[in-house]
Amino acid sequence: MMPPVYTIFYGTFIQLPRIPASSGQKHVLDINHGALWVSNESGRVEGFDWGVCTEEKLHDLLQDKGWRVVSGDVEEEEDGEKTAVRVVKASEKRHGFFFPGFIDTHIHASQYPNSGIFGSSTLLDWLEKYTFPLESSYGDGSDVAPQKALTAYEKVIARTLSNGTTCAAYYATIHVPATNLLADLCLKRGQRAFIGRICMDNPDFCPDYYRDASAEESLRATEATIAHIRSIDPAGRVVAPIITPRFAPTCSQISLSGLGKLAASFDPPLRIQTHISENKNEVALVRELFPDSTSYADVYDRHGLLTPRTILAHAVHLTPAERLLIHSREAKISHCPASNSALGSGLCPVRTLLDDGIAVGLGTDVSGGYSPSVLEAVRQAILVSRLVSYSAEQQTGRENLSVEEALYLATRGGAKVVDMADQIGGFEVGMFWDAQLIELSSVEDRSAETINDPQGNVDIFGWESWEEKIQKWVWSGDDRNVKAVWVNGELVYQRSQKETRKSVVHANIPVVPRSWVSFLLRWLGF
Amino acid sequence: MMPPVYTIFYGTFIQLPRIPASSGQKHVLDINHGALWVSNESGRVEGFDWGVCTEEKLHDLLQDKGWRVVSGDVEEEEDGEKTAVRVVKASEKRHGFFFPGFIDTHIHASQYPNSGIFGSSTLLDWLEKYTFPLESSYGDGSDVAPQKALTAYEKVIARTLSNGTTCAAYYATIHVPATNLLADLCLKRGQRAFIGRICMDNPDFCPDYYRDASAEESLRATEATIAHIRSIDPAGRVVAPIITPRFAPTCSQISLSGLGKLAASFDPPLRIQTHISENKNEVALVRELFPDSTSYADVYDRHGLLTPRTILAHAVHLTPAERLLIHSREAKISHCPASNSALGSGLCPVRTLLDDGIAVGLGTDVSGGYSPSVLEAVRQAILVSRLVSYSAEQQTGRENLSVEEALYLATRGGAKVVDMADQIGGFEVGMFWDAQLIELSSVEDRSAETINDPQGNVDIFGWESWEEKIQKWVWSGDDRNVKAVWVNGELVYQRSQKETRKSVVHANIPVVPRSWVSFLLRWLGF
Repeated sequence: MMPPVYTIFYGTFIQLPRIPASSGQKHVLDINHGALWVSNESGRVEGFDWGVCTEEKLHDLLQDKGWRVVSGDVEEEEDGEKTAVRVVKASEKRHGFFFPGFIDTHIHASQYPNSGIFGSSTLLDWLEKYTFPLESSYGDGSDVAPQKALTAYEKVIARTLSNGTTCAAYYATIHVPATNLLADLCLKRGQRAFIGRICMDNPDFCPDYYRDASAEESLRATEATIAHIRSIDPAGRVVAPIITPRFAPTCSQISLSGLGKLAASFDPPLRIQTHISENKNEVALVRELFPDSTSYADVYDRHGLLTPRTILAHAVHLTPAERLLIHSREAKISHCPASNSALGSGLCPVRTLLDDGIAVGLGTDVSGGYSPSVLEAVRQAILVSRLVSYSAEQQTGRENLSVEEALYLATRGGAKVVDMADQIGGFEVGMFWDAQLIELSSVEDRSAETINDPQGNVDIFGWESWEEKIQKWVWSGDDRNVKAVWVNGELVYQRSQKETRKSVVHANIPVVPRSWVSFLLRWLGF
Repeated sequence: MMPPVYTIFYGTFIQLPRIPASSGQKHVLDINHGALWVSNESGRVEGFDWGVCTEEKLHDLLQDKGWRVVSGDVEEEEDGEKTAVRVVKASEKRHGFFFPGFIDTHIHASQYPNSGIFGSSTLLDWLEKYTFPLESSYGDGSDVAPQKALTAYEKVIARTLSNGTTCAAYYATIHVPATNLLADLCLKRGQRAFIGRICMDNPDFCPDYYRDASAEESLRATEATIAHIRSIDPAGRVVAPIITPRFAPTCSQISLSGLGKLAASFDPPLRIQTHISENKNEVALVRELFPDSTSYADVYDRHGLLTPRTILAHAVHLTPAERLLIHSREAKISHCPASNSALGSGLCPVRTLLDDGIAVGLGTDVSGGYSPSVLEAVRQAILVSRLVSYSAEQQTGRENLSVEEALYLATRGGAKVVDMADQIGGFEVGMFWDAQLIELSSVEDRSAETINDPQGNVDIFGWESWEEKIQKWVWSGDDRNVKAVWVNGELVYQRSQKETRKSVVHANIPVVPRSWVSFLLRWLGF
């Protein structure tokens, strides 16, 4: 039998419409019920029909298109003339809906094992005390990545996928074998990822035990990982390299310039990721280390690192001149609110960045951020915006991010930040099907006793509108609500339904006498 | 067979030692491995032995004490002379530990269905738009609480218990039947609770559709709930009434005075709970409504409501004079960081309150707060303290709450706030066994594929100290880590272990031929 040509998704689809960054337009949810089909070959959305509001109409659609369902719960027909398709439905009973996959625009894969461990530190002492010692353990000078790197990288990919992250901009470490391993694992698991070998060669800042030997060595090692990543995924369909100077203080001017040139030597230029203005002490340090530069942003600009494909993480303390420069270079910003609060870095004025027309996405910044969940970043982005609002001279509430706007940043915003605004982040014809299926729990479905529900903590009482369900999901949702995740049209994660075991058993009942089976099940303890 | 006289808890016990509020002493975890025994009759800790560091020593302890294990996995002996005991162990493999139950010092049970729904509102418009309409639906003038109240109250108790809350100071609504129902349900489920019928009779602030008809009616209805609660639990072993003027703007001066006198008419005086200085507009409103009072705190003081048994929720914007007054009256404060950030109320300067010697506990403030989890309140308390620190003129980092200090507030602090500092909040002889059993996940225990783990999101890699495990629990833990909860020595919640179903089946194998059973299991889809 031929593999199915299309996958038809049926049910409720929720996304955030595109809105220009500085338009000031209000973000509203785009909610549709219908069918959407994805080419299994290209992984892209081929079409949708929001008029398909019932199972009957779905059946009609299949008839009209000449599609034959080869799996799923729509009746299978034996007609070789028809095109084989697969059907995936969002459960109405469980308030299921398809949502664009989350895009994590800033995450240190290597730091995942330290999640939640930061004591009372702030950025610079946190690096020294917690981060450099962990990262340095991912290489031992040999050509093989240590087991520790494998364990951490497998885990972080598993955790981010289970939280609905379909695309991540990862920092690895300075080690070539471990960085290559991260790329191999993302490709294997099917998670869209930009993989960055960290460059840090400045002996005045970096510790002796964890540093590139020289600017030349830093560039050579970076080139080696780029070559590897392009060899395992030549078209960059799933994984692609990203140039990653850790941040200005860790890099010599030679390596900064070299990395800028390296990125520009490709067509299209390689993506670049780094940190900027996370913490006031760090900003002061940059001023001291780069006396010739007029600002932190200027340091990157002078070295060819401020490009339309550059992701700047944090940007908490930018000056107006820096924002102007970043905007003029079309560089992007990754807002990492959980991390900024956890490390006490400050309250990033996201509204100001957006008003300036800068593209902003969300980052978990594991492990400065304590959670690999972009939904947690959504929550923290909203909370932080309210505190910015509270701290502001004029309390207009204008700084507040709405739930809808924060979800926009987590999807469309992130897509812009990774320079894929036309490829991912929404449900449009031609876009890759990078999506998640979310389900919520109905209070009415069970007694108050059954609180051990694998459906998670979102309680739907029955009177909620879709907008209110989404608010409840944002504030109380977690990985338990993520039932399935697709990247490039491929199913890359599915949450096992422990509660279906019982029904699986019952599904077998008809083939043997019912009374005998039920005795047996009782005897087995069901 | 006699029911067991004692329950022996064996494993790791972690608690926060008592420290005077303004001592400035550093909070550290008190970590012990050993055995602790609880009288099943009194529900109190009768003794402990931290020298019991192995199963062998546990066996010796049982021998020495003349204890016979009647259930649990220690070998049962048939010796009628011995005292029957039960043994509960914390799994070492799963990093299990006993921890004092969480105390939620401020939670609106009635608002639970609205969790996560607050749009972009702030306190006063939030009340009007979301809260009053929901609360008003819990009574219809009849003597019976509507189904809606039953559903909400069953759910909020189930959710708070599953998150480890052993004690809660609940706000209900103005309705007597529904308030009494909440008390009945807490008693039935065994959750320690203070139950407050809300008093609100000021027609200038309260809506017509949701208001006490008069001050007299407000007092009469309050007395009715007090009588009911004392009738169902005369000793106040599980539930007790708490006088609850909603907050100054909702109450006439007559009702405020009447409530103060009502509380004082009991011996000991009844507990009181209300709100104070949550939001700047609210503070201005109180100034306007009570022109004779010198401050918000003074309003309560003048009406006999500022007592050692008073819980003041929020306290974000207190003046130094108010803090002095509150301290002199020994009133307590419930810090609700998640709510304060969500409604943009501001950053409560907890360090300042603590330095002033005021007792502080944590509150979830559902549904101004979006989560019924005190662990979430712990997280938000830490984040908010870092932002206070960041906003301060002098960035000394002195405002930062450590993980240990925030956990202290959630247990010992809460115990002080509900005036039970000698009864709950720690593991001391004579204290009630109000506790939770926490378990974490080992990364090494399973492949990276098994991410659908009912153990939750805390990943222990194996190198972590207990202090680091606790940090990981605080930052990534949720209800999945709460395996069991006890109040007054009674098991009131146990998380079902879906993953044990398989082992339950295997446990039955020996009684029939192994090959036949394994065929059967395969056929049944196991």
